[in-house]
Amino acid sequence: MDSPHDIAANYDEEDFGGDIGFGDRPALIIIDLINAFTDPDTRLGSDVTSVLDQTERLLTAFREHDLPRYFTTVAFENSYGDAGQFIKKIPALQELRLGTEAVEIDSQLAPTDDERVILKKYASAFFGTDLQAELTTNRVDTLVLTGVTTSGCVRATAVDSLQHGYRTIVPANAVGDRADGPHRANLFDIDAKYGDVVTTDDVLVSLSDSV
Amino acid sequence: MDSPHDIAANYDEEDFGGDIGFGDRPALIIIDLINAFTDPDTRLGSDVTSVLDQTERLLTAFREHDLPRYFTTVAFENSYGDAGQFIKKIPALQELRLGTEAVEIDSQLAPTDDERVILKKYASAFFGTDLQAELTTNRVDTLVLTGVTTSGCVRATAVDSLQHGYRTIVPANAVGDRADGPHRANLFDIDAKYGDVVTTDDVLVSLSDSV
Amino acid sequence: MDSPHDIAANYDEEDFGGDIGFGDRPALIIIDLINAFTDPDTRLGSDVTSVLDQTERLLTAFREHDLPRYFTTVAFENSYGDAGQFIKKIPALQELRLGTEAVEIDSQLAPTDDERVILKKYASAFFGTDLQAELTTNRVDTLVLTGVTTSGCVRATAVDSLQHGYRTIVPANAVGDRADGPHRANLFDIDAKYGDVVTTDDVLVSLSDSV
Amino acid sequence: MDSPHDIAANYDEEDFGGDIGFGDRPALIIIDLINAFTDPDTRLGSDVTSVLDQTERLLTAFREHDLPRYFTTVAFENSYGDAGQFIKKIPALQELRLGTEAVEIDSQLAPTDDERVILKKYASAFFGTDLQAELTTNRVDTLVLTGVTTSGCVRATAVDSLQHGYRTIVPANAVGDRADGPHRANLFDIDAKYGDVVTTDDVLVSLSDSV
Repeated sequence: MDSPHDIAANYDEEDFGGDIGFGDRPALIIIDLINAFTDPDTRLGSDVTSVLDQTERLLTAFREHDLPRYFTTVAFENSYGDAGQFIKKIPALQELRLGTEAVEIDSQLAPTDDERVILKKYASAFFGTDLQAELTTNRVDTLVLTGVTTSGCVRATAVDSLQHGYRTIVPANAVGDRADGPHRANLFDIDAKYGDVVTTDDVLVSLSDSV
Repeated sequence: MDSPHDIAANYDEEDFGGDIGFGDRPALIIIDLINAFTDPDTRLGSDVTSVLDQTERLLTAFREHDLPRYFTTVAFENSYGDAGQFIKKIPALQELRLGTEAVEIDSQLAPTDDERVILKKYASAFFGTDLQAELTTNRVDTLVLTGVTTSGCVRATAVDSLQHGYRTIVPANAVGDRADGPHRANLFDIDAKYGDVVTTDDVLVSLSDSV
Repeated sequence: MDSPHDIAANYDEEDFGGDIGFGDRPALIIIDLINAFTDPDTRLGSDVTSVLDQTERLLTAFREHDLPRYFTTVAFENSYGDAGQFIKKIPALQELRLGTEAVEIDSQLAPTDDERVILKKYASAFFGTDLQAELTTNRVDTLVLTGVTTSGCVRATAVDSLQHGYRTIVPANAVGDRADGPHRANLFDIDAKYGDVVTTDDVLVSLSDSV
Repeated sequence: MDSPHDIAANYDEEDFGGDIGFGDRPALIIIDLINAFTDPDTRLGSDVTSVLDQTERLLTAFREHDLPRYFTTVAFENSYGDAGQFIKKIPALQELRLGTEAVEIDSQLAPTDDERVILKKYASAFFGTDLQAELTTNRVDTLVLTGVTTSGCVRATAVDSLQHGYRTIVPANAVGDRADGPHRANLFDIDAKYGDVVTTDDVLVSLSDSV
């Protein structure tokens, strides 16, 4: 991948894009890797094979280090009363109904009994959920974000992660989008303003070093 | 401006980018049009003459219709203790100190005594502020967002506006960025997923029609 | 019931306890009337027969007027990882496990298919939930709170309701507690600072008048 | 002070009121000890000499241990547009105007340059503020709450502190109210459900032990 810094001028390197780095206690947030998004044949899905593979490597490492990890899903009532203006903007969200297979985590990453799947209704994993309360309880200070989509729920979660005070790390090859332009543009924004855009290998090295 | 829909494939028109439209009671949110951002000679600034002009047209109209309007600014303590990880990521935020001219609203848009300037510390106008409480008190159902930057505080506020349940309207020529790539990419994302990207003229017509 | 105003001096009537009144669009929030709380034989339960009866009257009226109504429940993962410090403070919360009968709404108030049960983890119906987003989507400006317990989730929700900008109404005989002292003390605080403490009949009259 | 546990039956000791205890990194939150509340001759004030004295002891200790400490104030625009429904309920809030001496911290506790005064509009120190973001940045896991009033902003902050995942400690003699009934009733509720009600001496011992 070309450096996102090539995309735009006027984001001087001394003014934007500083490195935040890992803290003492990272958690892994696996965003919306549910069947509706991982099956390319659905209205919301695309080919995210590589995102699943890289996320699986991270999940295995976080499990081995016994560090906190959370999955998110997004699902709505049959009435869609909880889908607000969101469903008017994205009619394809109709596919995401509570209790259906579409909103279950992709079996490649099957959560264990002690790994929580957080139900959200909107883009950010923080919005309308108790994620922050769990993170504070667990004394987490760093979030590693993976999943889909870079321009949607990953970006929104990255902004909220920074806002809530967390060091925010996005491994570029463990997040994906249904189109490359938005993927790259949002990695640029995240790296310039909200979190460190790195590789999955970088994260794995950091985890090993910190043990 | 070319349609943002040209940027990426796989965002099918029937699935993404539906129109939300105006509700019954809009408010105008003027984001970070403070001297530090409107003076091109500063570390954070760029030429946003046209954004100021279009925002002024909207401000005049909202005043005439006696509809709610809010300004935001972003400013930090001398200790920068309130700047969290944000200032590590964007060192240029050091310019934004409480009580300095840099964080005052640009004089072209000087707020009147009954127009509130909301102090925020992060990207979204909702985060760490009581904006939602004011909007509920005033029974607002639609937010029109202007200001800077498209890829920063405007985008973050648009996402939060949708998430909080508001119809979200972004007049493309009343928001700006320090580079065109991020400006256009974020308008694409907003239009696809969070709000209606329109023109300032469109908003003015809607206001007139609703009277 | 004696007026809560008898309990304490130094809360002058001209300074505290003003009337807020109904707005244009009320919603009913039925708090934690789940089996674990309505069965007096459980660790968390007490006799709330009268609270159920009064809430049922309100639920019927809100259904007839086709006004929004929401139920809340509180339930935890088997790991209790989502119970934070709360479960250390209230060990009896162990009874509230996801998927069990204990956390289902009492059958006297059985929700219909289009009535949503909001899952919360803490005291306030707003905390860690998307309740505010639904209320904004539905343009609600007034919340009528019923359920249990007055000194716990009702009080916490009343404070948050006021904070989020809603007119807050608490019918005293439709909320209950496992002891009378905390019930009365919290109604005093709510009436002095956060919402109007009225009777179920008062609410029913207001609903009829507004039609 | 009699044990709050005498107030009500049906709050069995094995089910409610467990001890949470101190964590690794406490912060001190000094709530609303502003002139309007500490001057008994004002509409909102009462004699809180002892609360100021006990808080001063804690402030000195937190300064000596170089642990985070925050003050809160509550103040409104001249328009009171930011006072929502709150000012209808508590007309005496009119006294709290931005920029006036009434909303400055009592001089007995004068904040130093690096101690932040957080501006809030409502009861909880968390609501509409960025307090949580600062606490996460500083890796705080325990909040010690002092100030006024026990039945108002202290109680609301205690509930939110627990909800956000913090160990919550309330030294009973460092919080106060304008009447004894609400003071005692709210300490009972806090101790039963949200935080550990202790003495100022208890907190000072814990701070010494942890060094």
